[in-house]
Amino acid sequence: MPDTAPPRATDKRVQRSKDAVLAQTYALLSESGIGGVSVDEVSRRSGVAKTTIYRHWPSRAALLLDACSRLGTPMAAPAGASPIGDLQALANHLAGELQSARWAAVLPSIIDAAERDDDLAQLHAELHANLVAPFLAAATRAQQHGDLDRDQNAEDLVAAVVGPLFYRRWFSRQALDQQFVDTVVNTAVARYVPK
Amino acid sequence: MPDTAPPRATDKRVQRSKDAVLAQTYALLSESGIGGVSVDEVSRRSGVAKTTIYRHWPSRAALLLDACSRLGTPMAAPAGASPIGDLQALANHLAGELQSARWAAVLPSIIDAAERDDDLAQLHAELHANLVAPFLAAATRAQQHGDLDRDQNAEDLVAAVVGPLFYRRWFSRQALDQQFVDTVVNTAVARYVPK
Repeated sequence: MPDTAPPRATDKRVQRSKDAVLAQTYALLSESGIGGVSVDEVSRRSGVAKTTIYRHWPSRAALLLDACSRLGTPMAAPAGASPIGDLQALANHLAGELQSARWAAVLPSIIDAAERDDDLAQLHAELHANLVAPFLAAATRAQQHGDLDRDQNAEDLVAAVVGPLFYRRWFSRQALDQQFVDTVVNTAVARYVPK
Repeated sequence: MPDTAPPRATDKRVQRSKDAVLAQTYALLSESGIGGVSVDEVSRRSGVAKTTIYRHWPSRAALLLDACSRLGTPMAAPAGASPIGDLQALANHLAGELQSARWAAVLPSIIDAAERDDDLAQLHAELHANLVAPFLAAATRAQQHGDLDRDQNAEDLVAAVVGPLFYRRWFSRQALDQQFVDTVVNTAVARYVPK
């Protein structure tokens, strides 16, 4: 069948079911955290049979991973003129997401579950890796360009940028204003600029 | 009655009941997070009647606050010769607690609950304030001694120290080794040392 063939009615129905399941998974996650997401409840709310849900997602963790992977706006790794400017742009984007995106209210629930459940620890690790990948890419590029010291650990730099933003959103629960984000990036980068 | 009178048998019994309730609250928190702590279940496990529990703690949130306030080893604010050395000592102490203390496995559950429940947001705010108070005190003392710039915001400095430690424990889930803690403190402080 050529690629240009219109999707069959069955494909559309399958897609509609999958969308309904994911939408209800999001909704449950947002309302009551990860503890509130059971395949039973998702099935009840979406009207999609449990057997159908398990055909598409082999486990509750797989369903949660798929739902969560769609929660955030993916951050593209910018490749602007200045790698340090790219880090600043990423920090601004993350600060905005932390204050408004749905995943920011849901992630603590996944972190909590990861303390006690290996499948969810795996989900958490994938979400974390996706979240910091563009930061690591920008830091590594800055090192390659000589804008940041190559002997320093790029993961430590990322922790110095992302850590205070996370801290402010989930621990001190203070505003993530532009002045704070600028201070965080400048503080983090200062140590890594070659002397 | 003079202060030196021995405690009455009733007082001892009351204390034993309170201790049993708090011990079961800790245990439930550690096992299943905050969602697992109900007054019903605490009563069942401790053998203390719900009416008695509510006589000592007017709400589930009050019970959780009391249990959580005993979870961590309180960090004394050290007052050594060097205020920056005090910050380093506090960061070392916090890194140790994050890796071994019971509260480190429980706090994500409280952070998660705080996203959706105002009483628990209040509990979270108190725990956070207790946790960062010695850091703020050391940073302020360093500013008064002229070791750190007085024009900088002490809360931003605390975020730069505590944020990466929290990030490493709960987000990247990497080891909090001495090299990392030293890097964090040096990076954070470098920006605030008067030029």
